[in-house]
Amino acid sequence: MNAMKSTAKKIILKPYFLLFTFGIILLSAASLYAAEADTELMNRAKAIFGPLPASMPSSENPITPAKVKLGTALFWESRISVDKTVSCAKCHPLGLYAVDGLRKSVGNNCKENPRNDPTVLNAASQISEHWIGNRTSVEDQAKQALIGPPSFGMPDYGSVEKILKGMKGYVAMFKEAFPNEKDPVTVDNFAKAVGAFERTLVTPAPFDEFMQGNAAALTDQQKRGLRAFMDTGCMTCHFSPFVGGQMYQKFGVFEPYQKYTKSQSVDEGRFAVTKNPADKFVFKVPVLRNVAETPPYFHDGSVDKLTDAVMIMAKIQLAKDLSPAQAGDIAAFLGSLTGKIPEAALKVPVLPSSE
Amino acid sequence: MNAMKSTAKKIILKPYFLLFTFGIILLSAASLYAAEADTELMNRAKAIFGPLPASMPSSENPITPAKVKLGTALFWESRISVDKTVSCAKCHPLGLYAVDGLRKSVGNNCKENPRNDPTVLNAASQISEHWIGNRTSVEDQAKQALIGPPSFGMPDYGSVEKILKGMKGYVAMFKEAFPNEKDPVTVDNFAKAVGAFERTLVTPAPFDEFMQGNAAALTDQQKRGLRAFMDTGCMTCHFSPFVGGQMYQKFGVFEPYQKYTKSQSVDEGRFAVTKNPADKFVFKVPVLRNVAETPPYFHDGSVDKLTDAVMIMAKIQLAKDLSPAQAGDIAAFLGSLTGKIPEAALKVPVLPSSE
Repeated sequence: MNAMKSTAKKIILKPYFLLFTFGIILLSAASLYAAEADTELMNRAKAIFGPLPASMPSSENPITPAKVKLGTALFWESRISVDKTVSCAKCHPLGLYAVDGLRKSVGNNCKENPRNDPTVLNAASQISEHWIGNRTSVEDQAKQALIGPPSFGMPDYGSVEKILKGMKGYVAMFKEAFPNEKDPVTVDNFAKAVGAFERTLVTPAPFDEFMQGNAAALTDQQKRGLRAFMDTGCMTCHFSPFVGGQMYQKFGVFEPYQKYTKSQSVDEGRFAVTKNPADKFVFKVPVLRNVAETPPYFHDGSVDKLTDAVMIMAKIQLAKDLSPAQAGDIAAFLGSLTGKIPEAALKVPVLPSSE
Repeated sequence: MNAMKSTAKKIILKPYFLLFTFGIILLSAASLYAAEADTELMNRAKAIFGPLPASMPSSENPITPAKVKLGTALFWESRISVDKTVSCAKCHPLGLYAVDGLRKSVGNNCKENPRNDPTVLNAASQISEHWIGNRTSVEDQAKQALIGPPSFGMPDYGSVEKILKGMKGYVAMFKEAFPNEKDPVTVDNFAKAVGAFERTLVTPAPFDEFMQGNAAALTDQQKRGLRAFMDTGCMTCHFSPFVGGQMYQKFGVFEPYQKYTKSQSVDEGRFAVTKNPADKFVFKVPVLRNVAETPPYFHDGSVDKLTDAVMIMAKIQLAKDLSPAQAGDIAAFLGSLTGKIPEAALKVPVLPSSE
């Protein structure tokens, strides 16, 4: 009886065993293939985007701890605006990835700014600042904001310096940050200090872990999205470790953008800076780091959803009709660019006394 | 020769020695007297003010870590205001001791609030909130601010709940903070969470170290100021560990306040709440913790300098003319109430995604 049972078991088990073995082989092949696909995807991504640096240094404005300390305080300072309500942090709240979430930012006395608020995170990596590149650097942006009519709205730089000189705490911090200068409380040094702070605002994300070799850092959908991002041609403009910020491009290469966005008016973009007709409707290609956290989209904040923005971009820049699934995949990939804001930048500085 | 020199030295040294000994005795007596005076001052202060608690608990709204975490995020949240620019942190920036420094706060769409911005630091210790006590608690204040026309300006509470329910991150945080509730995303729970956060905002200061027995925590001028603060009668209203916030009082007991302030208009104060003629020009006695860091002063922010505010208060509340030196001493003592903002409150929370 026992021998018979054993033989019967063998006969019954054999096909299962074969199926099991075959399954294992298939799975191994699939996972080998997947691993190879991951490696190929990583290598392709690395070649296009490259490794994210730890900061965004400038030879003209070296990052020093004393400058960053002063710049952090000045970033939060509202007493240097014409109605005492505007600070850098007002339009760039760090807890919201340094954007205000409005279509167009609102400055002093409720004045509307001409365009949507670009984040200051990773911003110093760009060829220029603002949507139309009318600021040469984060330092230039910080300085000009002080007298920008819809921004801080101060009548002149001297007024800002006078306020800062009236606060002993700031005088000491400027001296510490610029030790070799006789009269360090200047708007140029304000700009350098804020710039030094902003040059530290790099946000490493799951996408960087993926490029460093951790295949599990991205979901399957995000990997499909990354592939689609590259295959569709988005990376023609959105390259570099910051996924943008390195060139200008016409918004609406194949069709006018306002055909698809909910734009209230038409913005001629960089033409306002250069007066060159070739620059009509040309904007700086934005950095896409943290883009999933910084709606609404485009220079006029005219589109609310990331998937809509992705489909519009493919349509008017590349003449490609993405399926909703493809747009969803690309949006998922863009979510992998949501990074970690440096801890130091998330600490509110206690500001110097008014007297 | 040597013997002669030695005798001569003795003769010369003796008077110096006597003088020295006498000096030591005098100094010891003076320092004994000073130590006794310090102890007397400490004891007197302790009896009037008492020890500062670590937090400001409420039996109706116990402080829990999950509630504080949610409340911290909500404190920074601007997407729940009618123009998406107002958060608690807008009028209560923690780096400026939770005041905006304006004569009167500015809310949504640049609307002016009726009175000067009281700090939220130590605020939960008070008998009520706002200058005229028209908010019963920090929870009540937080809730009503949402629909306050010059504040968040939302049309109704339901609109706030709808926005919060649309953000998955918040839904999860409300569930964690209120685990036994089926539908926890409510404005009442918003109020509890913000309230729990604000109940942690106690700011220990040098004055507390002094009351705990460290005589060196205050300067001599601050000690003179503390004595003058008590001798003049300021502590009749400004008592308790929070140096105020425990009662209502007429502003201008001996003379109308607008005679000395730069008030643009006359505010009838608590009369607006009670309609009792006895409450005309009555306001809640403000907490004086961090007062040196929260200009401008009074319910209408009509006075810029702390020493001026001190002199006006003595004049119109107590019919006493302080000398500038006395006012300076009292202001110096008030500077010893500038405290340490809790580290946890100075950390910017990264807020939930909009979608």
